[in-house]
Amino acid sequence: MALEDLGEFGLIDRIVARLGAAAARDITVPPGDDAAAWAVDAGVAVATVDTLAEGTHWRRDTMSFADVGWRAVATSISDLAATGAEPGFLLISAELGPSVELEDVDAFADGVAAACECYGVRVAGGNVAGTPATSFSTTAFGTTTAAGDGSPVLLRRDRARPGDLVAVSGVLGASAAGLAMIEARRADEPEAEPLVRAHRRPQARIELGRAAVEAGVTCAIDISDGLLQDLGHVARASRVGIEVDAGAVPLHPSAEALLDAERARELALRGGEDYELALTAPTATLGALTDGDTPLTTIGRVVEEHPGEVVVFGSDGRPMEQPSGGWDQLRTARG
Amino acid sequence: MALEDLGEFGLIDRIVARLGAAAARDITVPPGDDAAAWAVDAGVAVATVDTLAEGTHWRRDTMSFADVGWRAVATSISDLAATGAEPGFLLISAELGPSVELEDVDAFADGVAAACECYGVRVAGGNVAGTPATSFSTTAFGTTTAAGDGSPVLLRRDRARPGDLVAVSGVLGASAAGLAMIEARRADEPEAEPLVRAHRRPQARIELGRAAVEAGVTCAIDISDGLLQDLGHVARASRVGIEVDAGAVPLHPSAEALLDAERARELALRGGEDYELALTAPTATLGALTDGDTPLTTIGRVVEEHPGEVVVFGSDGRPMEQPSGGWDQLRTARG
Repeated sequence: MALEDLGEFGLIDRIVARLGAAAARDITVPPGDDAAAWAVDAGVAVATVDTLAEGTHWRRDTMSFADVGWRAVATSISDLAATGAEPGFLLISAELGPSVELEDVDAFADGVAAACECYGVRVAGGNVAGTPATSFSTTAFGTTTAAGDGSPVLLRRDRARPGDLVAVSGVLGASAAGLAMIEARRADEPEAEPLVRAHRRPQARIELGRAAVEAGVTCAIDISDGLLQDLGHVARASRVGIEVDAGAVPLHPSAEALLDAERARELALRGGEDYELALTAPTATLGALTDGDTPLTTIGRVVEEHPGEVVVFGSDGRPMEQPSGGWDQLRTARG
Repeated sequence: MALEDLGEFGLIDRIVARLGAAAARDITVPPGDDAAAWAVDAGVAVATVDTLAEGTHWRRDTMSFADVGWRAVATSISDLAATGAEPGFLLISAELGPSVELEDVDAFADGVAAACECYGVRVAGGNVAGTPATSFSTTAFGTTTAAGDGSPVLLRRDRARPGDLVAVSGVLGASAAGLAMIEARRADEPEAEPLVRAHRRPQARIELGRAAVEAGVTCAIDISDGLLQDLGHVARASRVGIEVDAGAVPLHPSAEALLDAERARELALRGGEDYELALTAPTATLGALTDGDTPLTTIGRVVEEHPGEVVVFGSDGRPMEQPSGGWDQLRTARG
């Protein structure tokens, strides 16, 4: 069946049915009305929106529509993770270009449903339009609580303080290495599989964000635009300097095996799309957080010197040359 | 200055500055972090997203970027109005195609700021990306309260009951008549001005939605896809029949003057983009609501017969032939 035969409202019904348990059918106003509505407790609402446009953020030869559906959820959930919020509901706006077929929309919905199950979130509503180009924008809503003194309990990028350590979750550069393997037509090599999966099905760090808030961490950022660029945001917003030891940045063993070491490290510093978190906190706070099995690695420190700047130290202990880089939504796409 | 020279983060800073009082600087986490956060009371959260894509929903020869900014706010606010919610915050996702210039973004921000002032809402965050095509998606958040028995106080499309009257706000067909005048190069005719303004700067009915909720109305819908199509959603969701007297549908006097009467009525029934509301309620409830200066016109009734169907009666009292129509995001764009 063609999308235009099904029509907007037939397609919405089909998507909601296909989402299964990922469609929030039991909320105050479920998907299908002018707006969605759900009950909230008093507290702090947290909300974010992110876009995945074909040709800019993904291509049909690098990922399937099911992968795009997964990422459409993960990319916004990762922004919530960086605040330490508990995620709740999604609104998904689908702009369907002329070449999108019904089976593509079905696959997208399947990817959304899989990610929703993984992150414990549900789709409350959205929008569908036939448009000149294809893109998906996901708004994610979460909540967090207030402390005893009434202040909100969440992580912000402007809370880094001199003396804090800087830590990152997981391993970095895996997604960019996966994309490099796909583009080099090496995606089928067995050792490339975890890298390709990291690119197509990235994991957002909701549990780490929540644990960090509970451990008393107050500063974090989603490093999906690239570690150094995103740490630069922390440095400027917090008016501090940040120092990173390049040798301490955790790499994926498959990236080290398949790419040369320098390239693997470069992708870890600047590649982006890893959906990991960077945190800064005093040693004791970070120690309490890393006592469990949380995959956190200390990679540097916050200093009073060079406020607004990130300085990377090489294995020789000297500051490395720093080309500007990382993902810039305008420079990367239009420059 | 070129957009790519300014970069993503320079552009975001510029937009936030340009929004002025329309940027929510005093909330828990203001624009500029991974996610926005604001304090909420216990109650019901209401949220909706809508998209305006260039080539599908607007063209540069039919409206300016400032008009698009206004509409990007009004289109989502209208969906909140249809629920009777009190609007609060917006997240705006801007996808900027290759031909978008910095002055276009400035103008868009100016239009957003003007609409935000009009509706008493503020921008809490958003996203900017350089993409193959241009579109803007706006998520709007509102709140409503719970009644004494704990049930949420809001308007839904599935609450029409046989015996209800059907009423619409304002006049219908003005936006479509305005677009027709623009496309006929007659936009400069003095009498076309209110129609062109209705197309470029549509008014959402927030106050009417709030007043309707307070008067005890429980059923409403935004008729921006066209009166008959949207009443069809009410009929199907409520499992009732709806009867409309075509002669009772309020037209804009300029549309009647500039277009022939039949075309003006056709645009009122099917043209869409008016951002008016249709309500259904018992006679007494509707009477209480129309006692004030609320611009409401009774145009029909809800019946038990022909559930799911809308029947339009002509001036001769007979059912009119009904071609299917109204705006369908897939059929209209791709069919």
